[in-house]
Amino acid sequence: MNVAPTHISAASLDDREISLIDRYWRAANYLSVGQIYLLANALLKEPLKPEDVKPRLLGHWGTTPGLNFIYAHLNRIIKARDANIIYICGPGHGGPGMVANTYLEGSYSEIYPEIGEDETGMLKLFRQFSFPGGVPSHVAPETPGSIHEGGELGYALVHAFGAAFDNPDLVVACVVGDGEAETGPLATAWHSNKFLNPHTDGVVLPILHLNGYKIANPTVLARLSDEELENLFKGYGYEPFFVEGSDPQLMHALMASVLNTVFDRIAAIKEHARVDASQRPRWPMIILRSPKGWTGPKVVDGKVVEGHWRAHQVPVAACREDGEHRRILEDWMRSYDPEDLFEDGKLKAELKALAPRGERRMGANPHANGGLLRRELKTPDFRDYAVAVPSPGSVETGSTKILGDYLRDVIRYNAEERNFRIFGPDETASNRLGSVFEATDKVWMADTVETDDHLAPEGRVMEVLSEHMCQGWLEGYLLTGRHGFFSCYEAFIHIIDSMFNQHAKWIKVSSHLPWRKPISSLNYLLTSHVWRQDHNGFSHQDPGFIDLVANKSSDIVRVYLPPDANTLLVIGDHCLKTWDRVNVIVAGKQPEPQWLTIEEAEVHCKAGIGIWEWAGTEEGLDPDIVLACAGDVPTMETLAAVDYLRQILPHLRIRVVNVVNLMALQSPQHHPHGISDEMFDDIFTRDRPVVFAYHGYPYLIHRLVYKRTNHRNFHVRGFVEEGTTTTPFDMAVMNELDRFHLAIEAIERLPALKDKAAGLIATLRQKLAAHKAYVHEYGDDMPEIRDWKWPYAKPEVPAAE
Amino acid sequence: MNVAPTHISAASLDDREISLIDRYWRAANYLSVGQIYLLANALLKEPLKPEDVKPRLLGHWGTTPGLNFIYAHLNRIIKARDANIIYICGPGHGGPGMVANTYLEGSYSEIYPEIGEDETGMLKLFRQFSFPGGVPSHVAPETPGSIHEGGELGYALVHAFGAAFDNPDLVVACVVGDGEAETGPLATAWHSNKFLNPHTDGVVLPILHLNGYKIANPTVLARLSDEELENLFKGYGYEPFFVEGSDPQLMHALMASVLNTVFDRIAAIKEHARVDASQRPRWPMIILRSPKGWTGPKVVDGKVVEGHWRAHQVPVAACREDGEHRRILEDWMRSYDPEDLFEDGKLKAELKALAPRGERRMGANPHANGGLLRRELKTPDFRDYAVAVPSPGSVETGSTKILGDYLRDVIRYNAEERNFRIFGPDETASNRLGSVFEATDKVWMADTVETDDHLAPEGRVMEVLSEHMCQGWLEGYLLTGRHGFFSCYEAFIHIIDSMFNQHAKWIKVSSHLPWRKPISSLNYLLTSHVWRQDHNGFSHQDPGFIDLVANKSSDIVRVYLPPDANTLLVIGDHCLKTWDRVNVIVAGKQPEPQWLTIEEAEVHCKAGIGIWEWAGTEEGLDPDIVLACAGDVPTMETLAAVDYLRQILPHLRIRVVNVVNLMALQSPQHHPHGISDEMFDDIFTRDRPVVFAYHGYPYLIHRLVYKRTNHRNFHVRGFVEEGTTTTPFDMAVMNELDRFHLAIEAIERLPALKDKAAGLIATLRQKLAAHKAYVHEYGDDMPEIRDWKWPYAKPEVPAAE
Repeated sequence: MNVAPTHISAASLDDREISLIDRYWRAANYLSVGQIYLLANALLKEPLKPEDVKPRLLGHWGTTPGLNFIYAHLNRIIKARDANIIYICGPGHGGPGMVANTYLEGSYSEIYPEIGEDETGMLKLFRQFSFPGGVPSHVAPETPGSIHEGGELGYALVHAFGAAFDNPDLVVACVVGDGEAETGPLATAWHSNKFLNPHTDGVVLPILHLNGYKIANPTVLARLSDEELENLFKGYGYEPFFVEGSDPQLMHALMASVLNTVFDRIAAIKEHARVDASQRPRWPMIILRSPKGWTGPKVVDGKVVEGHWRAHQVPVAACREDGEHRRILEDWMRSYDPEDLFEDGKLKAELKALAPRGERRMGANPHANGGLLRRELKTPDFRDYAVAVPSPGSVETGSTKILGDYLRDVIRYNAEERNFRIFGPDETASNRLGSVFEATDKVWMADTVETDDHLAPEGRVMEVLSEHMCQGWLEGYLLTGRHGFFSCYEAFIHIIDSMFNQHAKWIKVSSHLPWRKPISSLNYLLTSHVWRQDHNGFSHQDPGFIDLVANKSSDIVRVYLPPDANTLLVIGDHCLKTWDRVNVIVAGKQPEPQWLTIEEAEVHCKAGIGIWEWAGTEEGLDPDIVLACAGDVPTMETLAAVDYLRQILPHLRIRVVNVVNLMALQSPQHHPHGISDEMFDDIFTRDRPVVFAYHGYPYLIHRLVYKRTNHRNFHVRGFVEEGTTTTPFDMAVMNELDRFHLAIEAIERLPALKDKAAGLIATLRQKLAAHKAYVHEYGDDMPEIRDWKWPYAKPEVPAAE
Repeated sequence: MNVAPTHISAASLDDREISLIDRYWRAANYLSVGQIYLLANALLKEPLKPEDVKPRLLGHWGTTPGLNFIYAHLNRIIKARDANIIYICGPGHGGPGMVANTYLEGSYSEIYPEIGEDETGMLKLFRQFSFPGGVPSHVAPETPGSIHEGGELGYALVHAFGAAFDNPDLVVACVVGDGEAETGPLATAWHSNKFLNPHTDGVVLPILHLNGYKIANPTVLARLSDEELENLFKGYGYEPFFVEGSDPQLMHALMASVLNTVFDRIAAIKEHARVDASQRPRWPMIILRSPKGWTGPKVVDGKVVEGHWRAHQVPVAACREDGEHRRILEDWMRSYDPEDLFEDGKLKAELKALAPRGERRMGANPHANGGLLRRELKTPDFRDYAVAVPSPGSVETGSTKILGDYLRDVIRYNAEERNFRIFGPDETASNRLGSVFEATDKVWMADTVETDDHLAPEGRVMEVLSEHMCQGWLEGYLLTGRHGFFSCYEAFIHIIDSMFNQHAKWIKVSSHLPWRKPISSLNYLLTSHVWRQDHNGFSHQDPGFIDLVANKSSDIVRVYLPPDANTLLVIGDHCLKTWDRVNVIVAGKQPEPQWLTIEEAEVHCKAGIGIWEWAGTEEGLDPDIVLACAGDVPTMETLAAVDYLRQILPHLRIRVVNVVNLMALQSPQHHPHGISDEMFDDIFTRDRPVVFAYHGYPYLIHRLVYKRTNHRNFHVRGFVEEGTTTTPFDMAVMNELDRFHLAIEAIERLPALKDKAAGLIATLRQKLAAHKAYVHEYGDDMPEIRDWKWPYAKPEVPAAE
């Protein structure tokens, strides 16, 4: 291996220090192996018997010794420099290592007192690992000191940067496995350094751990020359330092020496940034090449294991049945010399002294249990931003613009706390949230030019054309106790489907751990939505994220479809004040009719669903038909359909229902927001036809209401995967969600209209034909459509019940 | 801007050549602007009037002139070297540019004769763009020469590599926008060069187009120094060449010169690879820095436009209403001097001569209409791989292992054609498809060491720890007329949700274009599925991809849940022979009971759904209850429940139904595979309770059957988001999908059993309690569970109707 210029000298620790740190490392390795293998005989006081070994061996050894090595050395530097460090373990498979280290430093037993620092506790520690009723095999919410699951790979580095933002004294050490390094999200995450302010943010110290192999293959980066690696990471904007080898003594000395240099570099950068934070520093990073399964069995059944992908999981497997395998395991565990490490099952005092104390222990750092540090967000009174709506439909405005005004002031109110950021893939302005730039800038540490606009090293808005980065930064920011908001084009939020899944799983588990304090909710604003992507075309038209969200645990997820600006204000304000949830808000950015006053909006949002008496024609009698809607465009089309129906069928008794909280439709046993069956029947009737205009794929409504009395009379229209570049109204027509199709559906569902129906429908079909002819001629919607307004004054007194 | 060593001299074209290529470029720019703006007056024979301008201006100018510049220069090199090139346009917003160029070279009018090469045709070309009933604003299936939509960003480069594999004579020029370059999938896609064989594969020529801005921000890569960029791309393994500037004359000379050098490099690499393909070459790539909106309006309303993000979309907007805006537009269009370019609306002959001929035109290259080149896959007789099943449940085997044997021979049968590859994120062996390595290797062009296993420059299996790369390579491979197969852990296929969406959209549109010939289906095998991720834990447990797929157009998607190896063989063989679809197969890799003989499997898969008479106890009478199942684990648990029920309720008439083709459940008007209502009623009865054990989230079954007569008696159990590291059976218990819960549900649904029910249920609950106690003690499932086998012999004669 060639030695690049950034390889540095290894003279740092004396022999005694090396011996101590090596023993500490061996202790962590011993505990890691014990967790994977042992049911009994934790300290190997007796020869290993078959029944000492777990019947099912689950766990991943391969990455673990390297993780333990890093942990021990970070402990050293924390103590030496009183550094404030958290440890992000990208290779989440290395669960046993993180558990072992937090146990050694004592933070584990503080959180889980039943796992004491003695022989009994150690045995419990071993048994519970990957065991039913115990702890998962991966780094998980249960693991002290972790904000990162590491089950699905790709997000270690974005989580690290998210944690570092606005934490100027924190160093986030982030171990990136060479498997994970092949993923897309990780490959772009290196560029996060263009968004890190060296003065007001903390430090991310990436440690690329090249142990050479994935499950069954070498890794790409491990098979590059040091020269290519050095180019790559210099190109990414870092100063790489190499730590390479397999001899533990030499590696300890080298790692200590590199960490000294790296922390000197960090100190110098921070020092300089205090004077001038305008230039992007070249942050140090470490490339650690060490063997996979380091210090584990060299050969099993004649096949190389240490330093090979065979070390990935359980390196020697048949230890109950096969005496030779069991001997290999016993020799392996004894090679760490447990008697030299533990006394009565407790880590020896001279080793314990190597661990940091109190909150400096990485398993007890409060940043990794962000709820401990979370402060309530300060919010202005949302009513101050309300749109005046003298009468329904009498004014038009873009709803997200109004929310933007509110968010601008949220930023102002929390400017001092520096605990709120807005994230988005280059779309904050496009999504009409531009008012926020009256209060702040976009973070930017790359080069600037004179014509740049609202770019600054400091700012509360983060924009990068990577939904993965936006999502991951935000997750890291929330998990360390802050607040945030992610606005995104609706179709492209699918890019982070899997990240959402993993975050929802994290919240589900962590919210049941009493020692994990609640974190702020992850709030999405999905705008530039399916019905307003007529200009961009089919690739930009997809409302399916809601379906994904609806599959997750009901105590975690909420979906809101505010029909106008005032409802959006109420919902937005509410979501920012919640915790341990994922809130999805879908709302349009284009000018659209406003329906409710702010007072009405509050009532409506609180109920989640309601009858819009001012729009219907029930007049206190039972309705003939219910026209329901969820979403801004479906609401407008429904009201336009009602307008037509009122004109052509003045005696028809129509009820109009609007749904703002989608989960209210579900049965209360399926979702805490579900309204009671009685209320559902009151609203949707027990037997009248319901024509439901829904923002997304129509099946979801059927799925949500399938337990309800009247569900078989639900006729749902929504997006049925028809789209292209066309006009806004034509998008609705293509999917038969427009006013004319809704009116036709209503007429068809009313047998009493049988005689008139054919004529009425023919008239409506003529309107559809006229629309098609017009758009094909002029490329725009007919003025009759574009300029349609709700023509009815609001009744002075609400209609009687 | 500093000049890096790879900047090369610009002396290449003489003045006449420069003038010609510049005029060609201006023609493309003129046509691009015309498409965005004009309804009439195509050649500006008269002064521009308000009514000449489209009422709605939709399109993206910013990236287009750069794309046109590249197109013109690629044309030159194609002609000069008879190169076989296709053009992947990452910045899909540049739709007008791709349309303009294919129109100029004549390929557009060949495909769309109504858009002729004359003034009338030009006007039609302008009108149809971004117009209802016309063509989308983006590069799309409708665009000749394209295999890449470019609406959602991130996949240009993986598509390019997918197209290049096994096409040794093809050069795939791939324009990567600097916005797209920020995405994760694109950032890792650069590493695809470690998987490209220089001898047997084609060439990918990446052209990173730094035009500086996204929608409203500078791009990260554009704000790096050339030195950092050079490091970055050398680190990625390329030799970067810079083309930077804004003066057209200089830029033409420079681009031509760089392309000459680049194609010399390519020729040298290919030449060397003929002798020795074992070393990874450093492929050339181009970094083109040119202004956004190059040659467009410099300033509008006092604000800088050219070279700024304001040029992104429509640079001057109010051209109907505002005379000054209209003047800017007219000046801009006239600056290209249309009279110097067109004669009677036709490109002048000396310019037309610059375009390549026939299939060398990038809009007519058959590789970009892959169905033209597609040959049927040769497949062995799947029956030869069948598992012998003397009696249901009498043998156990891992289903994917059997499919792996079949796939091995598919590889052998098509070895000469080199038109079939298997893709997966490091999981081919883990997913038990390892037999394929008897026939081939994994492609690997990075460094190797002695202990490596089945890594070779040539191979049919592609493994990299990036689902994005696997998916993108496969898409590119299919779109250019080949066949493929993607095996993936079920939970992590969500990583490519959005890519699946976009591919499904592409197929939906392209399958309606007569000139686009069908391409092979995209086949997924999802294994290591939710019920067999007990060892990896909650993060690895998610069956939701099926729900996403079910939202797409029914003519495109298929979902199969084969319950055993023989059904998997039938389905796998079928899927490989289909076209223009996405097939999702979910099947387990662990040893599991085998139910059907291959003959029975064929019948069952053909029907998609069927009554398993050998398992039920109807005996020709109406059943009391239906136990239905879909998926391998649900099938096993259902049969085990039936076994218990048969023991404790010998007179109960149970029907067992298995669903292998999920779409068969849907109404025929919703899906072409949906069985008729009559058949559905025959199978599921009109009024008996149906206890349905389903592989995924239970709601999907409700959604699929909500139109069916008996749907209100469906009681569906599936994954309800409960998971952790535990035993396989405990996963089923946590989600109440196990044999005991199914039996309890059945008993509860039968009012006739009322008297006995409490006692029976108590017994079953005891079994559940015994299970919990056992797993908490031993960490493994009870032998009674693990060793359960279907105990009934198969009736000699099938039960009567």
